[in-house]
Amino acid sequence: MAQPSKYSNVLIVGGGLIGSSIARACREFGAAKHVAIADTNADVRTTLRGLKICDEVTEVADPTHADLVILATPPNKISSTAKQLLPNMKQGATLTDVGSVKGDVVEKITAILPKGISFIGGHPIAGTEQSGPQAGFAALFTDRWCILTPTDETDLTAQTLKKFWQTIGSRVTFMDAGHHDLVLATTSHLPHLIAYALVGTATDMETVTRGEVVKYSAGGFRDFTRIAASDPVMWRDVFLQNKDAVLDVLGRYIEDLTALKKAVRWGDGDTLLKEFTKTRDIRTRIIDAGQDNPQPNFGRDGTGDEEE
Amino acid sequence: MAQPSKYSNVLIVGGGLIGSSIARACREFGAAKHVAIADTNADVRTTLRGLKICDEVTEVADPTHADLVILATPPNKISSTAKQLLPNMKQGATLTDVGSVKGDVVEKITAILPKGISFIGGHPIAGTEQSGPQAGFAALFTDRWCILTPTDETDLTAQTLKKFWQTIGSRVTFMDAGHHDLVLATTSHLPHLIAYALVGTATDMETVTRGEVVKYSAGGFRDFTRIAASDPVMWRDVFLQNKDAVLDVLGRYIEDLTALKKAVRWGDGDTLLKEFTKTRDIRTRIIDAGQDNPQPNFGRDGTGDEEE
Repeated sequence: MAQPSKYSNVLIVGGGLIGSSIARACREFGAAKHVAIADTNADVRTTLRGLKICDEVTEVADPTHADLVILATPPNKISSTAKQLLPNMKQGATLTDVGSVKGDVVEKITAILPKGISFIGGHPIAGTEQSGPQAGFAALFTDRWCILTPTDETDLTAQTLKKFWQTIGSRVTFMDAGHHDLVLATTSHLPHLIAYALVGTATDMETVTRGEVVKYSAGGFRDFTRIAASDPVMWRDVFLQNKDAVLDVLGRYIEDLTALKKAVRWGDGDTLLKEFTKTRDIRTRIIDAGQDNPQPNFGRDGTGDEEE
Repeated sequence: MAQPSKYSNVLIVGGGLIGSSIARACREFGAAKHVAIADTNADVRTTLRGLKICDEVTEVADPTHADLVILATPPNKISSTAKQLLPNMKQGATLTDVGSVKGDVVEKITAILPKGISFIGGHPIAGTEQSGPQAGFAALFTDRWCILTPTDETDLTAQTLKKFWQTIGSRVTFMDAGHHDLVLATTSHLPHLIAYALVGTATDMETVTRGEVVKYSAGGFRDFTRIAASDPVMWRDVFLQNKDAVLDVLGRYIEDLTALKKAVRWGDGDTLLKEFTKTRDIRTRIIDAGQDNPQPNFGRDGTGDEEE
């Protein structure tokens, strides 16, 4: 197999948290010669120009010279943007995206793909609860996984895109689009839905004031509010696009929660202890895999160090 | 009202995360002249002696000289330990605890309280997912709230205990024991139950491997695993002691989650967007109240700083 080469000319469509972070990382790690960002929002463009993180900022995306076009728009704009850009992309170029749901996008774009252009779905498992170009940073993808969903994993195009993500700090894995959607429904979409629901429940209690919820949030609640502060438009789209997988894991989750509720109602301490004990191991594995900070409370309270 | 004086002699029963942190904080902030820790576990005693964080470590708790006795045992041992110690406590001394549920403990201890001894329920809203004496640190209570549940808030005993917690870094508030249990069911107990259930659901999926759950946890799941790594014995006891309040908020939560499930099933983007938008404000308030770190991802990924 031939060695993958580098992309000279990269066009990023959408200059938010992810798009602007890719631009920063391209410069930081020397992943491309020329990086352009297109964004339809005038404020975003002004911010991007001020940040000086890329070579060109435009309102309309012009894909004619790009070797790689990355769609970093909100999820529900990915397919329509692809439809707009594909006729003007140059032969041999690659189109990819960074959306949290892959099945829907891969199906729609594959159906309209012109000859000589490649499309490979992508999803960097990285982000923060913040949004917009000012929230981005070059190290966002460092040591995080990026999932790519090529139809042919051995293809040079897939290898070149893999190399690109590795250059900007990611670990890369290939996966079937449908399987990706089920895995992410479990590790990301369900956690977000759960967090949004909890923050809603807590703020709607008649007997507990919002002031009390805020004051005593250090007991666990505050962790959920971080996740529930994520971009609402993006998350609406994720749940609309990944309906089937989300309903599957959400159904299982409500069953499991109902079983715990029954154990609480009946004072069944043995069941509670058994369930609470088996969950500790997975935390250790996540820390060992380099996917979280081992410091207590994520290290955010300045915990522990002075004792070591 | 007379000014509260300081406790000279403090006995902490239970040398785990909370008990050992109180001992450290007493020394760090000069909150007592003599601090003893009693713990029935020989390994804990050996660790405590090695840490040199208090004046005395014993197996059996001797309360005869203590001005303040702090019960920092697992929740289900608080009442029985109080029953053992109360007959030997000196006149004018104060008994308190640090348990996460107050109604049950306050009722049981008040019923057996000898004349001349005061009991005031207490609960510092502080902790980490770790446990044991080695996990403690002096700054654990700094800027966190401690809730006290005295029957008479103007009493000098209540004021003296308040002063003690303030001296070791806490903010202090008085609250009715029953109301405390409802507030904490919302801000702490429900979040823990939800997190334990999610980690259980994710690790029991047949179609998603545990390895995948670990690898792609940065999408949201990893936050929940931190909470679900908390001490299982303590949490079992919390749910057994605070059954009614937990069932109340858990019932509401399952209703809210089911409403979101319905919106996903029917593709009702408007409802999803409305629910996801209203939760963002509470995060801002928690950060403004100094109860969480404003850095994205709690600052744990080294995010953002290089851009500022």
